[in-house]
Amino acid sequence: MEIKEINSSIDYATLLGSCPLPITNYKEVTLAHGSGGKLTHRLIEQMILPQFKNEFLSPLHDGALLNINNTKLAFSTDSYVVNPIFFPGGNIGELAVNGTVNDLSMCGAKPMYLSAGFIIEEGFAMEDFWRVILSMQNAAKKACVLFVTGDTKVVDRGKGDQIYINTSGIGIIPDDVNIKTANVKAGDKIIINGTIADHGIAIMSVRENLEFETEIRSDTAALNGLVETILNASKDVHMLRDATRGGVTSVMTEIAESAKLGVYLEETKIPIREEVKGACEILGLDPLYVANEGKMIVIVPPGICDTVLQAMQSHPLGKNAAVIGEVVNQHAGMVMMKTAIGGSRVVDMLSGEQLPRIC
Amino acid sequence: MEIKEINSSIDYATLLGSCPLPITNYKEVTLAHGSGGKLTHRLIEQMILPQFKNEFLSPLHDGALLNINNTKLAFSTDSYVVNPIFFPGGNIGELAVNGTVNDLSMCGAKPMYLSAGFIIEEGFAMEDFWRVILSMQNAAKKACVLFVTGDTKVVDRGKGDQIYINTSGIGIIPDDVNIKTANVKAGDKIIINGTIADHGIAIMSVRENLEFETEIRSDTAALNGLVETILNASKDVHMLRDATRGGVTSVMTEIAESAKLGVYLEETKIPIREEVKGACEILGLDPLYVANEGKMIVIVPPGICDTVLQAMQSHPLGKNAAVIGEVVNQHAGMVMMKTAIGGSRVVDMLSGEQLPRIC
Repeated sequence: MEIKEINSSIDYATLLGSCPLPITNYKEVTLAHGSGGKLTHRLIEQMILPQFKNEFLSPLHDGALLNINNTKLAFSTDSYVVNPIFFPGGNIGELAVNGTVNDLSMCGAKPMYLSAGFIIEEGFAMEDFWRVILSMQNAAKKACVLFVTGDTKVVDRGKGDQIYINTSGIGIIPDDVNIKTANVKAGDKIIINGTIADHGIAIMSVRENLEFETEIRSDTAALNGLVETILNASKDVHMLRDATRGGVTSVMTEIAESAKLGVYLEETKIPIREEVKGACEILGLDPLYVANEGKMIVIVPPGICDTVLQAMQSHPLGKNAAVIGEVVNQHAGMVMMKTAIGGSRVVDMLSGEQLPRIC
Repeated sequence: MEIKEINSSIDYATLLGSCPLPITNYKEVTLAHGSGGKLTHRLIEQMILPQFKNEFLSPLHDGALLNINNTKLAFSTDSYVVNPIFFPGGNIGELAVNGTVNDLSMCGAKPMYLSAGFIIEEGFAMEDFWRVILSMQNAAKKACVLFVTGDTKVVDRGKGDQIYINTSGIGIIPDDVNIKTANVKAGDKIIINGTIADHGIAIMSVRENLEFETEIRSDTAALNGLVETILNASKDVHMLRDATRGGVTSVMTEIAESAKLGVYLEETKIPIREEVKGACEILGLDPLYVANEGKMIVIVPPGICDTVLQAMQSHPLGKNAAVIGEVVNQHAGMVMMKTAIGGSRVVDMLSGEQLPRIC
């Protein structure tokens, strides 16, 4: 490798001269840019991706697929800024472990090694930090991954919010596994592993001080065991995606756009808890847009649908798995849904900001 | 892999019962816990490392050394919270690229792939974000690394500070390279590649509104080219470390403690710019504790010292390289310095907080 230029100081005038700011309607970054919806996509597509274009950078996957000396690796990163940091069913530390484990799993990889980067606000209670660390330890043990490197920064009071955590991870992809959007074909079946919107509503119920008869808990979970079960049932799985920020809708729209095919969902087939449905009505939220932290979309050719569904249902994290729709040739790039009352409507990506700092 | 427990909810009472909070004098995290000095080490050693103990987690290296299917990889992470985000000689984006490139390089690895995790404060100017992105693009190009995956989060106004960036990275370690503290032996020579304290003083001069005749600029630079030059000169290099947060002192103390050997430095041999020395006097700072972002310590057996020194001096980032001391059998675990006036003193790790948010 030859390093041609060494001087590290950057001539912004030259840089900016040749690369003017892309046209954007926003002079500032807004909360909606972090929603996982349309604005997030536009920000990433206009401001970031074109600048770093390379064969590995795939915005529509949860991680990068690398090939190092003939070993296929997945590499992924996520920062966690959830508020509050402790919530029913989990906390920011557990989320940070499971989230990156899941991103790697969605690449078909066996998650192996994680890094942890802490940004702590001055004044954060040592005991809360301890609870976060212990739950990360516990979550890593459950997911069979190792933390191998880390970093700790402290920012002044009022310049953070207790703690933010970045986790990055490396996983190994078995040779015979090949998960990618390009595999998706018309006729493919769409399966989800369980009820939607639990995580987002658990967070919102704390923020809004809502009480329900049954406590709504986050579904945060490491999905690598379930993915292993699925891939043991069949290696012909076309695509895996976890439905986190932006909910099921964002993921399905991304896949439809990228595959240039249509997605057809049936509302009545999408599993949702009664109390979550009720909470969504109270809060005026569409559960299809609400974040999950332990739910994944599995896209399979019709021939293996029953096999995969049964395998999923045999796993504790997939016992409510259901086929919720299929990939079609019609309305390419769009998601249509047959509603509960029999009509059908377009389900578009979230355009504003719904639930800031949900993960 | 078998996932035995699935239920993701954590029983804190049980967890905390079996693992009480380690004894600490601090009920809250303070800025000093992020200084890179004693408190940072204690926080990491008490609160974090024992919980994640494994063969790969080496606190005294800049990254983890992994072996995946007989390929040796380095994996590293760092979060950047520098304030201000633009400073003479660089900005947070460039720092985030170079910092992780350097951490991988110090493992003897050829840095290959980076991830970027952005935590943006609501209201951050789109144009500043654009400048940061362009300089990351530029720095990545110079260092011959690719950004392959990323994440963008937005936090509410007053819960961040413009932008924080995490970068993690993967590098490949050549088979015949073996950089580790355990290699360090009494008699080894200690080389630095140039002047110290430039980065820290560049940041401080902006914060304190100090003006000097010559502008003091950060030394931020990607050191992978220099490391390649060094390893081409000799593969027998014992140890590499970049002297970032906590300065030369922290790095040397860490190595002395870990190798259970003494370090002997000669103050007059440590390169420092006159204006930086002057600024340190004005600010009451010891330059040995001030952060660098393009300086590295190279520890070599005496037999190859001249070869390595000459190779370094032939590289633009090593032209001021100098031998600044040696490893000794005496005063194990401690760093002693022969001062400019002929005496000698113990150089201990920073115990309070000197320059918060320096990187």
